Amino acid sequence: MTDEAAAFVPGHLTGFFSAHPDDDPAIAGSRGAGVTLSHGVDVRVEPGARVGGSPASITLNDECVAVDAVAGVRDALDAADAAVVAETPLPLGAGFGVSGALALGVAYGINAVYCRRRTENELVAIAHRAEVEAGTGLGDVVAQARGGVPIRLDPGGPGHGRLDAVPAAPRVEYVTFGSVSTEAVLSGDTTRLTAAGERALASLREDPTPPRLVALSRQFAREAGLLTDRVAEVVAAVRREGGDAAMAMLGDTTFAFGTDLSEAGYDPEVCAVHPGGATLREPDR
Amino acid sequence: MTDEAAAFVPGHLTGFFSAHPDDDPAIAGSRGAGVTLSHGVDVRVEPGARVGGSPASITLNDECVAVDAVAGVRDALDAADAAVVAETPLPLGAGFGVSGALALGVAYGINAVYCRRRTENELVAIAHRAEVEAGTGLGDVVAQARGGVPIRLDPGGPGHGRLDAVPAAPRVEYVTFGSVSTEAVLSGDTTRLTAAGERALASLREDPTPPRLVALSRQFAREAGLLTDRVAEVVAAVRREGGDAAMAMLGDTTFAFGTDLSEAGYDPEVCAVHPGGATLREPDR
Repeated sequence: MTDEAAAFVPGHLTGFFSAHPDDDPAIAGSRGAGVTLSHGVDVRVEPGARVGGSPASITLNDECVAVDAVAGVRDALDAADAAVVAETPLPLGAGFGVSGALALGVAYGINAVYCRRRTENELVAIAHRAEVEAGTGLGDVVAQARGGVPIRLDPGGPGHGRLDAVPAAPRVEYVTFGSVSTEAVLSGDTTRLTAAGERALASLREDPTPPRLVALSRQFAREAGLLTDRVAEVVAAVRREGGDAAMAMLGDTTFAFGTDLSEAGYDPEVCAVHPGGATLREPDR
Repeated sequence: MTDEAAAFVPGHLTGFFSAHPDDDPAIAGSRGAGVTLSHGVDVRVEPGARVGGSPASITLNDECVAVDAVAGVRDALDAADAAVVAETPLPLGAGFGVSGALALGVAYGINAVYCRRRTENELVAIAHRAEVEAGTGLGDVVAQARGGVPIRLDPGGPGHGRLDAVPAAPRVEYVTFGSVSTEAVLSGDTTRLTAAGERALASLREDPTPPRLVALSRQFAREAGLLTDRVAEVVAAVRREGGDAAMAMLGDTTFAFGTDLSEAGYDPEVCAVHPGGATLREPDR
């Protein structure tokens, strides 16, 4: 057992998706496409930090949080006393995959600290399952394990879901207004959004480029009935300037490539596409 | 069509492998494990640089080179006039996957410059096929597309071969003495090396850690009858100091994790595990 381990997991914006529930959380998931971000979550895992009978703490940006997916990962890796200290510039619940990033980063960290001898695919599967069981996401974890601009061809964790990607690394701009409840959307009737998501996926595979991804994501939000008023307003303003923008699933968040948001007069956060997936940070580097 | 495109592809050291030839180059490949490196190949593709009837040039570190795998990628993407300018700190033919990196980087670059609208998996498949047909490698391309410390569970390109990885990112040291002919080894009798490679793969999956990868790679080189005298000498010296080292397949090259080569008195090149796979470099970043 080492003293502690640190991992970085990129944020992930989903542009469009279809929901594929299953009794087996390893098979359940979503198909769709999105963007992983150089803005992500730094996760540190420390062993033996359990006090009395209560579970070890999880802090995110210095505040104690309860994240069911992280609890699931700790259970699966038999490390209830693994304390988690995480930091991120990304807001929680606004469509950036922060809960998935926490689950995946904790899986990598526990594996290193507690010498659990799992492969990457096994750790991704554990985090995917925990996120699905918590009801907080369906496709973020597998996308965050790959990096880039991932296309989820099949639902499910590694061994079930195939991934592909758009070969591009554009600059990313985003503006967040707040949360949309992932749990509420995923537990409701997903027929309409799934039909819209399947159409978008087929179209993206014909033309796997960043402009097409934004256009299809913009259409998806409207067709799926998920577009918020504030995002709709931004998208309209960006399009009046000749740009394009879309909504992050699921958050009251709009994103664009290049400088489309700033050229329309907004003051967006700016980051890059993250070139790789989640990684351990070695202490001696 | 844009003016030019640039890609970075990590180098890849193979520690052990088994060879799986097939009449279909998309299915042919190798199983095994290795390490992708932050030392890699920067590839730039420029269109329209063909002079008369001769193919467009390929330069590597300012020298004109002929690389069959690159010619195969240009053919597959119908871009015979794509000139290639590449730079790398890695030696060619010494077990770092430079030919695979060139093939993959050129595939990414042509796709961007000539708007070929292929996905990442399609580009990886094209580069894998070209490398197998050229006889210069069996598993580098898929590993270089993934990054990290890849385990090739199945032979073949994307859609055929599954990948996993060791979840770790150690510091890497290496010393190169020169070339071993990949073509000569792969075109000979591979029965013995394949048996040794299959044993090593099964063992690594039980304990997917960097120390085990080096130990299994060291044993593989000897069992496969590929260990060179100079690498054998270095490995023995490192082990006398309590460290461990192995041979890169296929080159007269030794590698180790942490500081095992430098602590044994060698003056190695030093790099990191590359956290992601091959990526386009966007001109506007």
